[in-house]
Amino acid sequence: MTQEITTASAAAPATHGYSGEKDAYLKRLKRIEGQVRGIARMVDEEKYCIDILTQVAAINKALHAVSLGLLEDHIAHCVVDAAQESQATGNPDLVQDKVQEAAAAIGRLLR
Amino acid sequence: MTQEITTASAAAPATHGYSGEKDAYLKRLKRIEGQVRGIARMVDEEKYCIDILTQVAAINKALHAVSLGLLEDHIAHCVVDAAQESQATGNPDLVQDKVQEAAAAIGRLLR
Amino acid sequence: MTQEITTASAAAPATHGYSGEKDAYLKRLKRIEGQVRGIARMVDEEKYCIDILTQVAAINKALHAVSLGLLEDHIAHCVVDAAQESQATGNPDLVQDKVQEAAAAIGRLLR
Amino acid sequence: MTQEITTASAAAPATHGYSGEKDAYLKRLKRIEGQVRGIARMVDEEKYCIDILTQVAAINKALHAVSLGLLEDHIAHCVVDAAQESQATGNPDLVQDKVQEAAAAIGRLLR
Repeated sequence: MTQEITTASAAAPATHGYSGEKDAYLKRLKRIEGQVRGIARMVDEEKYCIDILTQVAAINKALHAVSLGLLEDHIAHCVVDAAQESQATGNPDLVQDKVQEAAAAIGRLLR
Repeated sequence: MTQEITTASAAAPATHGYSGEKDAYLKRLKRIEGQVRGIARMVDEEKYCIDILTQVAAINKALHAVSLGLLEDHIAHCVVDAAQESQATGNPDLVQDKVQEAAAAIGRLLR
Repeated sequence: MTQEITTASAAAPATHGYSGEKDAYLKRLKRIEGQVRGIARMVDEEKYCIDILTQVAAINKALHAVSLGLLEDHIAHCVVDAAQESQATGNPDLVQDKVQEAAAAIGRLLR
Repeated sequence: MTQEITTASAAAPATHGYSGEKDAYLKRLKRIEGQVRGIARMVDEEKYCIDILTQVAAINKALHAVSLGLLEDHIAHCVVDAAQESQATGNPDLVQDKVQEAAAAIGRLLR
């Protein structure tokens, strides 16, 4: 089974959890990019600091939503796939590595 | 299979991801409880605000570590078990519910 | 003037921004301490991980509210007093030190 | 005195706390904008979710640094100025409004 997977991933680009919603993510990131540019414009026009900070908080929130979405997709696909492959192959390390990796990513987001 | 699991959980308390490390968690929570009491004492003795805030930041960090640990244990056990049971029973809903629940919990921690 | 302040603080305990609301803070911290104990109880009784994480998120929120209150009181009193004393004494360092200290505290809370 | 200030701000654009470091902020925001674009590229090229999340965490950190800088500049200038003007005019509301506004901004960043 591992063999098949390796072959498949050699033949085609790997599909990740978020692949099905790629366009939605790209759209959200485009909007965040525009928000960052908007803040730069506010700084350039010397807008009031508090108004700029309000915009920064809005970007934080949008980025959190993106990262939460990616995390959910990651767990739903990569972690779940590894869990099932672990069972099929009798190798628990496959899923344990994925879980630790996901936890480390969550930790970086929680800071 | 679900039947067996139900029977087992009727006979014994459910085991969760963190069960094996219960004592370690209890110890960490005891320490956090003491830190909160320490802050109350600082307030009562009218200590300098900034020093109190430094202690609050330390508690935040300790709580983050606890929640990250619980999350990792949860994914490693409950989510992984559900993934494997989903496969065994051919019912993808089992794991999807668990993933959504975990993502919602992460979202509450990211705020 | 610095002399007078030193004398004053030797004679009486320093009053901080939060002094007027000491009882309210102590009550909130008492409640947070109880919440931490509640989580320990949940772990001890092997409650479901997600329910425990929901409680951790509630504590995070309560601690944020406390730290925000302390910060606001600190700025409203210590920083403002230093600003006015800086002006009175013509020594800008007084207030600059306080501002840097407050910013460092905010930074620790933002992590 | 309020009159003079009004006149001044009518004649010239208001100077805010961050004005002296405008270029440094613009440079940092430019870099963050590039980081967001980098994430969009990673999504488009279907890079591994965890690597994308690592980049999101880096942006969070960079945004936190920007907001902390803006907050410090805001307190050091707008709040301190209001404190001194409050004293000069005998009107405590001036500074209280600024402090509340700053605390609300901090609260939005802490979430």
